[in-house]
Amino acid sequence: MKTRLTEAFGLAHPIVLAPMAKAAGGRLAAAVSHGGGLGLIGGGYGDAAWIEGAFAEAGNTRVGCGFITWKLAENPEVLEAVLARQPAALCLSFGDPAPFAARIHDAGVPLICQVQSLCDAQRAAECGARVIVAQGSEAGGHGERRGTITLVPELADWLAGHSSDTLLLAAGGIADGRGLAAALMLGADGVLMGSRLWASAEAEVSHAMTDAAIAATGDATIRSTVMDAARGLRWPARYTARVLRNKVTERWHDDPEGLRADPAARAEWVAGWDAGDPARANTFVGEAAGLIHDRPPVADLLARISGEAEALLAGAAG
Amino acid sequence: MKTRLTEAFGLAHPIVLAPMAKAAGGRLAAAVSHGGGLGLIGGGYGDAAWIEGAFAEAGNTRVGCGFITWKLAENPEVLEAVLARQPAALCLSFGDPAPFAARIHDAGVPLICQVQSLCDAQRAAECGARVIVAQGSEAGGHGERRGTITLVPELADWLAGHSSDTLLLAAGGIADGRGLAAALMLGADGVLMGSRLWASAEAEVSHAMTDAAIAATGDATIRSTVMDAARGLRWPARYTARVLRNKVTERWHDDPEGLRADPAARAEWVAGWDAGDPARANTFVGEAAGLIHDRPPVADLLARISGEAEALLAGAAG
Repeated sequence: MKTRLTEAFGLAHPIVLAPMAKAAGGRLAAAVSHGGGLGLIGGGYGDAAWIEGAFAEAGNTRVGCGFITWKLAENPEVLEAVLARQPAALCLSFGDPAPFAARIHDAGVPLICQVQSLCDAQRAAECGARVIVAQGSEAGGHGERRGTITLVPELADWLAGHSSDTLLLAAGGIADGRGLAAALMLGADGVLMGSRLWASAEAEVSHAMTDAAIAATGDATIRSTVMDAARGLRWPARYTARVLRNKVTERWHDDPEGLRADPAARAEWVAGWDAGDPARANTFVGEAAGLIHDRPPVADLLARISGEAEALLAGAAG
Repeated sequence: MKTRLTEAFGLAHPIVLAPMAKAAGGRLAAAVSHGGGLGLIGGGYGDAAWIEGAFAEAGNTRVGCGFITWKLAENPEVLEAVLARQPAALCLSFGDPAPFAARIHDAGVPLICQVQSLCDAQRAAECGARVIVAQGSEAGGHGERRGTITLVPELADWLAGHSSDTLLLAAGGIADGRGLAAALMLGADGVLMGSRLWASAEAEVSHAMTDAAIAATGDATIRSTVMDAARGLRWPARYTARVLRNKVTERWHDDPEGLRADPAARAEWVAGWDAGDPARANTFVGEAAGLIHDRPPVADLLARISGEAEALLAGAAG
């Protein structure tokens, strides 16, 4: 399967791993790159030691890294350490990329900006992003309100008129060949995939969490802030995170400040999180949970998704 | 363009008009049917005189009709009047179709159920729906939270296993050939289109409202309940409506009960609505606003969308 993305990055499949904080470790990122996609380590909140370990685990495999932009601003030296490794790409999401863009360009590393609105995309293009990821609300974990099916074509139109060399990826709700084929029809050059690759043999996720997602339908998720309240994280108000609903969201979804003020409830959530327990903590997964029924090796997944998309597109023309 | 939908209903394009309350009058519904799609009159809240007028306006053109299910339950006799006309289809959305399904089947009229979740779809299939519309949150007007890009394939999988003769349409965020092609790749047999056909020469909408949507980007909409508060409508809590943000949503979005309790503010909104004023009332339009740049005749629109989708699908196979 050939697109502008596969050409630019030398990939077999137009699929990039979402740099999911902690879940996208060196093993998963390397498996995606080995499987013909592009693996991105989930640098997340900027834990330098964890990121070092993830790169070590990826070994000589060519992978990139992603950061949570607003958090990186509190701890910019971790960016230097990653750039010194000449990663395949540096991905920024959830905040203004401007303070970091020049440094990333100077290092000769392609900048990927994940955005949640047209307005964000315009800012990312100004910052010289090589790739813009249009992330819809269907996505697991943090994100915003717009849906993938409108955000992708609207950004494609804007980029065609203003920054036509910038590549566009679709993210949010894409977990099989149907989603990949749809993304290409909407004007994307490929996809960024989180939940589907999170439920794989190589992801650093508890099996209890992925089992909960596999058992769930897409109706079972919610965008909430209770997980950030439990962890004492102060995300900018525009971002919420999609997780499986459970007794924690039932109790606290409408009162996250109450949870922040309740140390025992917070400790219980964190203990559940550390234990990988989907009942006491929350499973970070997108609406694509309803499309995920197994936890196979990444290489099999990528070949399956890409092959299914190719067959659909070939069949549709007939 | 041939799909199971075009075969079943004898259409040239796999496109059905969303039965938008009041906006989808007889002229618009007839234009869609004449143009090769399937027109549905927006029976909405069940105003019998308005519906009579709309059918009269459609004349001999074969059109269907849609109702807001929870409202129809308060006023079921209007269903009888419509069934007596042998409409091309009867569409129910926003509520349990079970109390009406047998009556519709007995009349020999195909039942279309619009749903917002897998759970709803299962209920609709039990009720013998001929067509299920998977409506994503991107849609304009009333709807719910799930995104089109996951809801469609998840429902396609479920229907394939449980009710394979039931047709599936995608709705929410689809406004051009890219969206139609994407919907077909996701497993739909066609699309139900609201906002795009609302911004057409034949829709019963003020030009000020459609001009506001044409000028807006997809970032400019919000799901809210202020419009229902202003009109004194008691929609079930799970449904909100997508509109263009303006000073009314800014003031009341977080306090709809305050608006309900403020007769002057409500009267101001209603006066704005009656005048078709997008500043005083709210423009009902989906995230597809960012993909809508004109107000052409429906026949041109349908041919354009269908042709673009065909070309995209043919090109993708190459």
